[in-house]
Amino acid sequence: MRAVAIALVHYPVLDRGQGVVTTAITNLDLHDIARSAHTYGVTQYFVVHPIAAQRELASRVQSHWTTGSGARRIPDRSPALAILRIVPALADVLAELDGPEVWVTSAEARGAVLDYPSARSRLAEDGPPVLLLFGTGWGLAPEVCRQAAFQLAPIRSPRADGYNHLSVRAAAAIIFDRLLAPR
Amino acid sequence: MRAVAIALVHYPVLDRGQGVVTTAITNLDLHDIARSAHTYGVTQYFVVHPIAAQRELASRVQSHWTTGSGARRIPDRSPALAILRIVPALADVLAELDGPEVWVTSAEARGAVLDYPSARSRLAEDGPPVLLLFGTGWGLAPEVCRQAAFQLAPIRSPRADGYNHLSVRAAAAIIFDRLLAPR
Repeated sequence: MRAVAIALVHYPVLDRGQGVVTTAITNLDLHDIARSAHTYGVTQYFVVHPIAAQRELASRVQSHWTTGSGARRIPDRSPALAILRIVPALADVLAELDGPEVWVTSAEARGAVLDYPSARSRLAEDGPPVLLLFGTGWGLAPEVCRQAAFQLAPIRSPRADGYNHLSVRAAAAIIFDRLLAPR
Repeated sequence: MRAVAIALVHYPVLDRGQGVVTTAITNLDLHDIARSAHTYGVTQYFVVHPIAAQRELASRVQSHWTTGSGARRIPDRSPALAILRIVPALADVLAELDGPEVWVTSAEARGAVLDYPSARSRLAEDGPPVLLLFGTGWGLAPEVCRQAAFQLAPIRSPRADGYNHLSVRAAAAIIFDRLLAPR
């Protein structure tokens, strides 16, 4: 089984007009995604943000839950928040993982996508760690997607009207379950 | 296909010492679970809270996103928040759905559980609507679980140490995907 790490990208991502922007860190993205990631055995959860003050905020949230009063009040959160790595750029993630195989996620298919059975098979083979990228805002910028080995198939809605507006927290949990749940 | 509704219960639920308590409403539970629920075709999302001031808070969040400035800023959220029903007690949910088949969810198995393939088969049959119950805090009180027709199988962690601390938002998203994703 290959190691799986994830990164939540705050730059470069799209806004609703398809412009490339930097988004703000959402507190709940740190907790919820860390708890889901650790539950499913993800090795590291990178939070990528180019602005130092935003990284400092994320570090303080992490410390609260790993060594501060939050760790004493709800100790179950500590191991989850301990997998958080707060870095300025995607290049730092790629360097720390020493050349992972990058898979991007998106609510929309752009060209060929990797379906979930195939993705599970790839994870069962030998190989470098897989880095799953999640975008904030309206999704990862095309320049990030172009660097990826694969795009995971979008999560499809069963609705006739196709309504599909999952939060990144919900999408991440669903994707971990599809890729990593015991069978 | 049977209709599926859900309820997020704030009373009676357990605290970490297994006492029965009332929990506070978490803003993100309203948004995230509404977005996930509507994406997967859930018909109603009941938020059950016995305290009027808490219900008022939830109503104001809902109005913000369905008719207020939030609806104008991010119109995609409106249909999701429109399925929210804010009620004082579980009895109100059962009455509104006219006797649904109640399925409870839990992070721990208590006796026999309904696995996901069987659950999907049951949903494909004719029958009354299914009401999925989610607990806040440390989970639904035993008196709620005893009223249920079924307990859905807990979501298992693939980890050797069994670490499993999903947020209710993540657990709900995963369960919707397992039960309702197109195949």
